[in-house]
Amino acid sequence: MVLLLLVSVKAQSQHTESYKYSPSEVVTIHSTLLNEDRKVYIYCPKADSSDINKRFPVLYLLDGENHFEIVSQYVDYLSRPDVSAIPKIIVVGIPNTKRVRDLTPTQSILDYEGKPDTTGKYTSSGRNEIFLAFLKKELMPFIDSNYKTQPYKLFAGHSFGGISVINCLLTYPDMFDAYIAVSPSFWWDNGYLLKLAEKKLKSGAAVNKKLFYCDGNEGGPNSFFHNDLLKFDSIIAGKKIAGLDCKYNHYPNEMHMTVPIVAYLDALRFVFKE
Amino acid sequence: MVLLLLVSVKAQSQHTESYKYSPSEVVTIHSTLLNEDRKVYIYCPKADSSDINKRFPVLYLLDGENHFEIVSQYVDYLSRPDVSAIPKIIVVGIPNTKRVRDLTPTQSILDYEGKPDTTGKYTSSGRNEIFLAFLKKELMPFIDSNYKTQPYKLFAGHSFGGISVINCLLTYPDMFDAYIAVSPSFWWDNGYLLKLAEKKLKSGAAVNKKLFYCDGNEGGPNSFFHNDLLKFDSIIAGKKIAGLDCKYNHYPNEMHMTVPIVAYLDALRFVFKE
Repeated sequence: MVLLLLVSVKAQSQHTESYKYSPSEVVTIHSTLLNEDRKVYIYCPKADSSDINKRFPVLYLLDGENHFEIVSQYVDYLSRPDVSAIPKIIVVGIPNTKRVRDLTPTQSILDYEGKPDTTGKYTSSGRNEIFLAFLKKELMPFIDSNYKTQPYKLFAGHSFGGISVINCLLTYPDMFDAYIAVSPSFWWDNGYLLKLAEKKLKSGAAVNKKLFYCDGNEGGPNSFFHNDLLKFDSIIAGKKIAGLDCKYNHYPNEMHMTVPIVAYLDALRFVFKE
Repeated sequence: MVLLLLVSVKAQSQHTESYKYSPSEVVTIHSTLLNEDRKVYIYCPKADSSDINKRFPVLYLLDGENHFEIVSQYVDYLSRPDVSAIPKIIVVGIPNTKRVRDLTPTQSILDYEGKPDTTGKYTSSGRNEIFLAFLKKELMPFIDSNYKTQPYKLFAGHSFGGISVINCLLTYPDMFDAYIAVSPSFWWDNGYLLKLAEKKLKSGAAVNKKLFYCDGNEGGPNSFFHNDLLKFDSIIAGKKIAGLDCKYNHYPNEMHMTVPIVAYLDALRFVFKE
């Protein structure tokens, strides 16, 4: 009964300092293609004292302002020597400047019901092609020349970020080795990407890629959102692409904004399951 | 085909700065009870401009050096206005100095098989009572006088931290409102806490507490570890304690060191499900 016998004691603060998380940095680069400065957030594993020249796979993560912190914490924890659930990787978080412009594959003002949106929020849409060129021609060379990168690259995004990932897989499949699309907005432009998937994915082709896609409870089990994911899953299954290692997870207990928390954890472990 | 037509461009870094995560700080206080300085990590939500006097529940988290970052990131993300899965809370992470001394409830040198350990690693065990007094008499008053706290308190720990949490629930149940025990090492001292639970928990008592406990794949479905959790769950069920809101999760796909990642997310949502 120590608690009851104690005389009153009161701890005094001796010293306060700011808490340092695992080191990450913010780099600003100028993009000629996008004609603007872009910040990127970079988590880089500590050098391994047993191999200071060790190089790491790189995860390019969209919506960096939303998910960089959680994902880099996952990577940091899961790659600890006493956990060893995944290898050490570099995470490059890309925060948005003009999200609709950069992350949508076509120019469209149709909303998720297929009706014209009159608020103007989609008028700048359809420049994902340029954004992917920024990744390929500007960001990746910068990262590869300034950090200890391996060639192995992952691309991950949520919602509009998810359709960017799928658009990249369908149009520039060689850009990445693993694609992670969390709750991709397949409704965009009347299901543009579902039609593109049907057209572009080649039956029997060996592509040697990993693909993770998922959705949460986004309107319930009969919602257009969930049905779109089922359609995509069925297109993928129908093509029987030999070298495409796929996983579809449905998270009925997660909302659109909480899916990424569970999905990125599962996706990292899926990609690095070997 | 923008990618193919581009002239070669190379982004230049204009500016690099360190990445600032949501503000957390490290405070060093002197503990008279433990006769040592103790660091604590404190994540405090940003003040709400609509109510700058708003006060927050406090989560006291053991093994701060392992799980403070992930848990504070969960709290930060899940309490964002556009996510709103849990309320804003303060997280106090407590890193270890002498883990075995502080987190074990009895003096014992028996290992998980009940055999005497000869390596000396358990010789300092059994001072959890003093450590709980440190929390109650020194740390909590310090936190309550320096941060905008509500009375509502949570206590969370993993492994030996998990048995600290259960020991506190059984011996000083009024210290916290919610108890989270992730993969508690019930094997400690020949199942000391299982016997204590049988003795201390009162049938029919109304305690108005929340309790979350869980385990992963720690030796398989017939392991002593899993069986201990099932025993505890059965004791809890048998007591029919009206005001104790309990949840037991088993994570067969998680290892001992990955259980906390999924469990702390589920536990936070369980405690704040209303």
